[in-house]
Amino acid sequence: MTDASTLVREKLDQVPAILDEHGVDLWLTFVHETMLTPDPCLDLVVGTSCTWQSAFLLSRSGERIAIVGRFDAPGVEQVGAYPEIVMYDESVRPVLKETIERLDPDTIALNYSASDPAADGLTHGLWLVLRETLEGTPYADRLVSSGQVVGSLRGRKSSFEIERIRAAIGETEEIFALVREQIGPGRKETEIAAVFHDEVSRRGLGYAWEAGQCPAVDTGPEKEVGHTGPTELQTRPGVLLHTDFGVLKDGYCSDLQRMWYLLDEGESEPPGDVIAAWDAVWASMDAGAAVLRPGVQGHAVDAAARASLVAAGYDEPMHALGHQLGRAAHDGGTLLAPLWDRYGDSPRGLVEEGHVYTLEYGAQVPGRGYIGLEEDVLVTADGLEWLSAPQRELWLVG
Amino acid sequence: MTDASTLVREKLDQVPAILDEHGVDLWLTFVHETMLTPDPCLDLVVGTSCTWQSAFLLSRSGERIAIVGRFDAPGVEQVGAYPEIVMYDESVRPVLKETIERLDPDTIALNYSASDPAADGLTHGLWLVLRETLEGTPYADRLVSSGQVVGSLRGRKSSFEIERIRAAIGETEEIFALVREQIGPGRKETEIAAVFHDEVSRRGLGYAWEAGQCPAVDTGPEKEVGHTGPTELQTRPGVLLHTDFGVLKDGYCSDLQRMWYLLDEGESEPPGDVIAAWDAVWASMDAGAAVLRPGVQGHAVDAAARASLVAAGYDEPMHALGHQLGRAAHDGGTLLAPLWDRYGDSPRGLVEEGHVYTLEYGAQVPGRGYIGLEEDVLVTADGLEWLSAPQRELWLVG
Repeated sequence: MTDASTLVREKLDQVPAILDEHGVDLWLTFVHETMLTPDPCLDLVVGTSCTWQSAFLLSRSGERIAIVGRFDAPGVEQVGAYPEIVMYDESVRPVLKETIERLDPDTIALNYSASDPAADGLTHGLWLVLRETLEGTPYADRLVSSGQVVGSLRGRKSSFEIERIRAAIGETEEIFALVREQIGPGRKETEIAAVFHDEVSRRGLGYAWEAGQCPAVDTGPEKEVGHTGPTELQTRPGVLLHTDFGVLKDGYCSDLQRMWYLLDEGESEPPGDVIAAWDAVWASMDAGAAVLRPGVQGHAVDAAARASLVAAGYDEPMHALGHQLGRAAHDGGTLLAPLWDRYGDSPRGLVEEGHVYTLEYGAQVPGRGYIGLEEDVLVTADGLEWLSAPQRELWLVG
Repeated sequence: MTDASTLVREKLDQVPAILDEHGVDLWLTFVHETMLTPDPCLDLVVGTSCTWQSAFLLSRSGERIAIVGRFDAPGVEQVGAYPEIVMYDESVRPVLKETIERLDPDTIALNYSASDPAADGLTHGLWLVLRETLEGTPYADRLVSSGQVVGSLRGRKSSFEIERIRAAIGETEEIFALVREQIGPGRKETEIAAVFHDEVSRRGLGYAWEAGQCPAVDTGPEKEVGHTGPTELQTRPGVLLHTDFGVLKDGYCSDLQRMWYLLDEGESEPPGDVIAAWDAVWASMDAGAAVLRPGVQGHAVDAAARASLVAAGYDEPMHALGHQLGRAAHDGGTLLAPLWDRYGDSPRGLVEEGHVYTLEYGAQVPGRGYIGLEEDVLVTADGLEWLSAPQRELWLVG
């Protein structure tokens, strides 16, 4: 049995209790051509790609039924997670309708969510197919969002998953240590990124996000920090160097930011403005960490950190304090974020034991660049465990 | 300028005429967290990933407007394809609504389609966000599918795109030639797949589909052929070896099937049943190729091939004769497929000059295995050009 199918079986074992908890009778994942439009739930509960319209039905009472096209069936059989595989040739609709009628659910959860992209894998085209398939049956009016189900299932990491995340973080920290030795003045952002890329290739790893922006490398104050690639800007004395990097190892991600300061002539430590910002960003992250525990809402964690940083005189960060981490770098579910419209309901979600979050905040230091910190933490029964070794001191060069 | 942004600009230049042709005033691509839920149109008209809710508006009169979150803006700027980039922090909705009101379109095409997965990138969650955003405006009732727009844009390959596809096919044929030298009796399917994988890594290529099923390797008659990975089954004299393989090179795919027959003791050529099936499959592919030209409907091409194979006494293939090929192995739009429900309207689409298709059919030979042929062709003004060098003879071993 491959690791992929072990992981799928482990997550599938969690499903019935989670459906029961959220009052859902049937959870339906409905996909087509998943190389083009991959539902993020496929990695969790299917473990292979599908070409034709394919339906995966998981019931509160533990049934697992796959309805797939003839040529997709062997791949689904190979994973071995679905005891009942129904094969079709010309149309998925009749057998899908029959199967739903047989299970007779009061609620059918589908993968759509305005708040949580990780629970929003159902395309609108397939939603129309489903509506038409169920038209005239009572089930057409029993469709609900699987947002909470997916949030619980992705969020509650098994010990096997946590070990995977630890391993990804371990590789990332080793790569940072290698890069650290090579930082000096006059290095282009693109050259620094190439050191990361070579090491990722050598280790046979993947990237936690788009390789062109992984790592992000930002040197000095000239650049707008964001989701962008490295440029020809060069490191120089008296400025900061910021990096944001994560790997994908055995299906799980890391996501860390690390910081350098290049000492100027005559300096033996960073200047006061840099130290003050560093301390303020860390104080705000610690303020968030102090309230991160099971049962709190995500926005309360962000609010503690945000208040701390703003009280210290820095701009309010225009992003969340943290997101969940797992199969994806942005793993969905509860967010440690302010109650802004674009986050939808995600910041109202509860923090639970077994969730893995990033904690990431930052501040601009005029004339020096951007200080961005990011660590990865596991929520425990009464607080958190740092999965990464926190960078409590700036890395100094020169 | 990178090749990626060259390609995006080239496709964007095609957009206004295509919108005009299909009577669409505004085409809106609306996405979030595209690492989780990538709209296949992003590669064509955006060229980077997005984290926050992001809207890309292309108008019939040539306007190109991106509405993106603060941290996504630098990445979109870096591609350089959108002259107007509007940045937001807390909510995309007010500025999206204002922008649509300013453009005042009679029709707004969105990326949903029940028939064409390549035009079905809009998630149902984001469709709900859009509906709510436009509620109370006349635009809420002007939403249509972008299926035909996307079909035309993806389908009509530029000369630059065709060169990319040729290059991917060239690599694939070189790899098949290398593998060909290594085929003998007693090779496991997994070992044969490993030869392909090593060569893909050595050349720095990607896979046209999931690596675990690319190549598909099927030896002998024991296995159900489909989208599945290689097994421990071994090649042996007197049986067929079937492979289905494609690479991703510089953003474009190839997709070819190649066949071996392992001569049995005393044989100097394949037995009669194998030769008959080979000839029948080729005759059916040629029957399809003979009617493939601009202006015919996809199902007519499939029907010609299907009738030929069935008339020769073989089972009707339970799949399409061909799909388009480009950025994706299954590139959407018009399909050379029967009028089965699961294909929706795609087989009714017209074949156009500049389309690139696979032609792929197959037959079981009892006791020997599966004969599957697949070539890649370009539709020209009056017929087709073979982009791959057709395998007109079985490759014999022993």
